[in-house]
Amino acid sequence: MSEVHAARRSRLRDRWMAAGNEAALVSRPANIRYLTGRAVPAAALLLGPDGRDTLLSPPGPVTDGRPEPPGGPDGLRRLTLPGIASDPAVAAAELAASAGAATLAVEEHDLTVARHRALAAAAPRLRLTDLGCAVEQQRLVKDEEELAALRIAAEITDHALGELLESILVGRTERHLALELERRLMDHGADCPAFPTSVATGRNSGLAGHRPTDRRVEEGDFLTVQLGARYRGYHCRIGRTFVVGPAPADWQIELYDLVFAAQRAGREALAPGAEYREVDRAARHLLEAAGYGEALAPYTGRGVGLEIGEDPQLSPAAMGKLDACVPVTVEPGVHLPGRGGVRIDDTLVVRPQADGGPELLTITTKELLAL
Amino acid sequence: MSEVHAARRSRLRDRWMAAGNEAALVSRPANIRYLTGRAVPAAALLLGPDGRDTLLSPPGPVTDGRPEPPGGPDGLRRLTLPGIASDPAVAAAELAASAGAATLAVEEHDLTVARHRALAAAAPRLRLTDLGCAVEQQRLVKDEEELAALRIAAEITDHALGELLESILVGRTERHLALELERRLMDHGADCPAFPTSVATGRNSGLAGHRPTDRRVEEGDFLTVQLGARYRGYHCRIGRTFVVGPAPADWQIELYDLVFAAQRAGREALAPGAEYREVDRAARHLLEAAGYGEALAPYTGRGVGLEIGEDPQLSPAAMGKLDACVPVTVEPGVHLPGRGGVRIDDTLVVRPQADGGPELLTITTKELLAL
Repeated sequence: MSEVHAARRSRLRDRWMAAGNEAALVSRPANIRYLTGRAVPAAALLLGPDGRDTLLSPPGPVTDGRPEPPGGPDGLRRLTLPGIASDPAVAAAELAASAGAATLAVEEHDLTVARHRALAAAAPRLRLTDLGCAVEQQRLVKDEEELAALRIAAEITDHALGELLESILVGRTERHLALELERRLMDHGADCPAFPTSVATGRNSGLAGHRPTDRRVEEGDFLTVQLGARYRGYHCRIGRTFVVGPAPADWQIELYDLVFAAQRAGREALAPGAEYREVDRAARHLLEAAGYGEALAPYTGRGVGLEIGEDPQLSPAAMGKLDACVPVTVEPGVHLPGRGGVRIDDTLVVRPQADGGPELLTITTKELLAL
Repeated sequence: MSEVHAARRSRLRDRWMAAGNEAALVSRPANIRYLTGRAVPAAALLLGPDGRDTLLSPPGPVTDGRPEPPGGPDGLRRLTLPGIASDPAVAAAELAASAGAATLAVEEHDLTVARHRALAAAAPRLRLTDLGCAVEQQRLVKDEEELAALRIAAEITDHALGELLESILVGRTERHLALELERRLMDHGADCPAFPTSVATGRNSGLAGHRPTDRRVEEGDFLTVQLGARYRGYHCRIGRTFVVGPAPADWQIELYDLVFAAQRAGREALAPGAEYREVDRAARHLLEAAGYGEALAPYTGRGVGLEIGEDPQLSPAAMGKLDACVPVTVEPGVHLPGRGGVRIDDTLVVRPQADGGPELLTITTKELLAL
């Protein structure tokens, strides 16, 4: 475990030292977790000029029960600061200066103006440069360890959803169904839900990120659920839409087939070298052609990993191309105000055709089930 | 409702215009919610030089189900930006410049260096100054509307805890007890839990923010629960420690009496004009005198409101004095590694003695119950 993180840190060193940096300060929590395997609140990671890596953190609740991850020494030094008042990033800057660094690359997209000024004041002879999104870039392509965690997160998610489908739904409220799904996610070993579980019935169905209400499931409803497990810090997402009752109405079949076709087109467009916007286009144009262009969400998919919505973003304006081993969601949806709608979300890993094409992690059926 | 928020905005205007500012940009989510009553993700609030207030936000998922709060027009203009790519803070700076502002006060403790640079680039003739924590300062003392929400949050919390105490606990896991508490919080009308519910049994008891495990409750255990409801955005906290079984052991009674005495001393020290550090001292010195000074958390209480841990902080180094109508927690605790411990957390509102002294919001008994 820890060797993996040491290797990630040295890969980062190789890249930014090539860029002329001598020391780097990582402050963004997801980036710190990626490079250390540790989820420490309000911490700062210094990659020092002396080649030493130091994780600085406030005492926090001294008795905080969070377990340290397994794994022997990985060359990471821990420094716990005396008071919560002291900012670990400032302490890291002082440490870098005392270790002889003349420049320190910081995450300007994460540090606030006030903290940046405090760093400059604490280490006046240190020239602060911008590390930019070097760590986020490195996080794009996942290693086997990360993909393994994502597969387990998806397995947990499929189980939780599968169990719900076996239970009686009619008459239960969106809130209670969402709470039950979250309980099942935990039962199957999730750290926690990857995002607030959404259950949307009837006229609410098809809404992205709908907050569950006290509306009860009725015969004939579309029922949209969106959930995901977080496992060892890795997030996945599934979204499905069902019909409650004996058989779907014609308009429901029609709308479902359309969204299904769009979602499949998006999935099939996933390949190493495919442009982000091409993938979005593949799903989007079908919905636009059917006259639903107006109300579409600004993206049809996003990256997942240590964050539920990370790079890349599959949207019309996105720049860049997919690589192998990049996990993304494909999540188009259509909502008809007053009537309801359909969302179908999957989490997949980009793979070359030679390896069988995109790896589908969320395997719950996408047939239109009548429950 | 909206009049309240309009009044808060004009109170803020009065204070920072006195400080020579022309226009202000509020970017911190809790501050935006305080000034607008709206919980809009990734939004920016501009208090313009023309006296107009504008809330700018990205489209987000167009079909997002979040309801707008009740209340008629409150002079707040809404601007939804074309793409999620565009930063509302940058758009707000451009709007301020086009409205004729020469300077714009921004929240340098919230804006990242990268966003601040983008603002400067988008509105080069605009001089950016620091609004500092003007909004946080204004949020310290709560108005009746806010205290009412906090009282309901505490009521919900007491109900959820009270129901749990009536159920069988032995043999159930920390995880399941925590999930049940969160379900009950929702059942009683919470927006969501105010923070991750903590249930700690046996040797885990007394740990602050302990993450529930699969350990089962056993006879003779100390059982520490920490939970809180968020209601209309307002957070409260309660923490209680119980003994499972017929009767507590002597060491349990002794430790409980000590923490109870410290917590009461902290509560009794709450008064308008009392220094933050005095209140901390009142609770802390008893625990230090008993030889538990080493492992104490860095603070014994914190402010609550639109955030669960906001100003003030009751800690040895904190500067400042309490005012009336400031809600705070008093939450000392002691944990004996390998044995367990005790935490007792309450949420109270500071009141002058003339009004009966501190108002206790979380009224669940603090006797040492044997369950």
